[in-house]
Amino acid sequence: MLDNIRLSSDETAVIILDQTKLPGKAEELRLTTAAEMREAIMTLQVRGAPAIGIFAAYALYVLAKSIPAKADFHRTLKEIKNSLNSTRPTAVNLSHALGRMMNAAKKAGKKRESVLKALGDECRQIQHEDVAVCRSISEYALTLVKDNWGIMTYCNAGPLATSRYGTALGGIFLGHERGYRFNVYCCETRPLMQGARLTAFELSEEGINTTLICDNMASRVMSEGRVQACFVGCDRVAANGDTANKIGTSMVAVLAKHYKIPFYVFCPTSTLDLNCKSGKDIIIETRDEAEIHTGYFRERLAPENESIKIYNPSFDVTPANLITAIVTENGIIKPPFEDSFKAIIRKKR
Amino acid sequence: MLDNIRLSSDETAVIILDQTKLPGKAEELRLTTAAEMREAIMTLQVRGAPAIGIFAAYALYVLAKSIPAKADFHRTLKEIKNSLNSTRPTAVNLSHALGRMMNAAKKAGKKRESVLKALGDECRQIQHEDVAVCRSISEYALTLVKDNWGIMTYCNAGPLATSRYGTALGGIFLGHERGYRFNVYCCETRPLMQGARLTAFELSEEGINTTLICDNMASRVMSEGRVQACFVGCDRVAANGDTANKIGTSMVAVLAKHYKIPFYVFCPTSTLDLNCKSGKDIIIETRDEAEIHTGYFRERLAPENESIKIYNPSFDVTPANLITAIVTENGIIKPPFEDSFKAIIRKKR
Repeated sequence: MLDNIRLSSDETAVIILDQTKLPGKAEELRLTTAAEMREAIMTLQVRGAPAIGIFAAYALYVLAKSIPAKADFHRTLKEIKNSLNSTRPTAVNLSHALGRMMNAAKKAGKKRESVLKALGDECRQIQHEDVAVCRSISEYALTLVKDNWGIMTYCNAGPLATSRYGTALGGIFLGHERGYRFNVYCCETRPLMQGARLTAFELSEEGINTTLICDNMASRVMSEGRVQACFVGCDRVAANGDTANKIGTSMVAVLAKHYKIPFYVFCPTSTLDLNCKSGKDIIIETRDEAEIHTGYFRERLAPENESIKIYNPSFDVTPANLITAIVTENGIIKPPFEDSFKAIIRKKR
Repeated sequence: MLDNIRLSSDETAVIILDQTKLPGKAEELRLTTAAEMREAIMTLQVRGAPAIGIFAAYALYVLAKSIPAKADFHRTLKEIKNSLNSTRPTAVNLSHALGRMMNAAKKAGKKRESVLKALGDECRQIQHEDVAVCRSISEYALTLVKDNWGIMTYCNAGPLATSRYGTALGGIFLGHERGYRFNVYCCETRPLMQGARLTAFELSEEGINTTLICDNMASRVMSEGRVQACFVGCDRVAANGDTANKIGTSMVAVLAKHYKIPFYVFCPTSTLDLNCKSGKDIIIETRDEAEIHTGYFRERLAPENESIKIYNPSFDVTPANLITAIVTENGIIKPPFEDSFKAIIRKKR
């Protein structure tokens, strides 16, 4: 598997695999400035809720090291944190990771050197934990499936979206290592094609049987009896179990309910946001309409005139009542979610 | 509105608007040979169930005129008909129109000149009737909606798919002429983007408020309360009301049921195929996988290796129990469909 986020050996840069170039090119970017780091998140060079958290932690560390000696270190650190935090609103992992970094800095006291050491330790720890969390999620995932099952997945919640294994794809990779034969249906995920470019790439490169479809084919594929479970990741889970994930996820969930197929959401407990009461409190990012009318196309594929609008919400909310279970590193949570969440977060602490 | 299919003035060619070039270019093609006519249907230069029927009728007429004097006229005519008929399997309108043409030829007797005259009359009559049928469907459609409604449509069932007004879009165009203000949500319709390229183009050029979305956004748009009805066309309706239409239509229908939004199918009675008992008897065309992985993209957007497959069914079947009503030129048919179909076809005769 590709190493998608790491510190440069001299710790003056964050090196990422540019996800916008996949699967055509596996190109690494060496990012050193705040502007480059922000752009990497906003343009989806790095993407996937857990990966954004890991990346932002490394970015904060590298940028903290470059704060000039004459600057107000703590004030500048906070400004950098706020600037990174504002790049994407929907995934909670970004603010969660940055919150952990700022706590570590606070505990380290006033001295620049000790704060930098604490930040360096914390960002490595965040990535380290992500690997362990994804591994644990993957083990739980394997208890939900059988050999030869068809599994539909949406967008990308694999190694590229985390740091290894992935959330929704973790069980598929782990099962494949152990000899399970899955047939994975990847929805291409318009407009940015993460399913086609990233998920189909990650899975098929490992030799897992992968079938790529357009998002609008999910209904037919389910109606043909090809799918025994749906596996998706998520960007934020509200206290009542409502779940925000890539636009189109709620479509898959409605279809799964109609065709009586279990629909599973996979995430670290850090994605549970008990400060959000329900999906109504989750801010949904709306992105540039050019992603839809041009994006990866050779030319604009929509008319231009004053009567046309283009709507590009980047996420949608799958209501709790469409979710069979939410799978975390601490266990499989079934509805009603509210009380189980509190217990599982206590277990974590 | 654009004139999408017509005979050349000397009646030696069928002139069509090349729908693969829209909305970037409005380019006309002058087709004279059987190979060109077949290619026009197979590559979707002409598309839309009723439009394919009209086009095939004109094509048969033009090709019949060019049958060499020394050839066996009736045998060659039948060969041309079979060749045109095999270009696309799902829409019934193609075989229906060609069937009418062959009947007209048969009634005209043995003489080449009288057969050619009958064929010329019949293809014009087919187009003429299509306009009247679409007009009537549009009037019925208007009885189903209110001013200011949001209407979701899928693929393209407008003037470009027929010869004027359209089926699913007919009521929207007619209502607009009469001062209704609709907000139409066009699903882009992957992989060939008929919603973005054709429907959004036809509607917005007429000044109708049009919002283009990716297919996977339909669930969110419905959940936001923006849609009061779904209007789609169809390619074949089985005796029990199961309906084949562009891949993804059944997704819209499942979503509409979930969000309690009425789902209407619009078609001429010629699309009702009582020889098909149910959706299981409808042949679903599967198209080239390149449409999905490359198609309109600048480069291939999917990995290439031995573990990846790409599945490209061009249609799906919406089961009768998801359809609120089927709207024809002879009236609005509500479930149970089976008996109503027989009555409405009797009414037609």
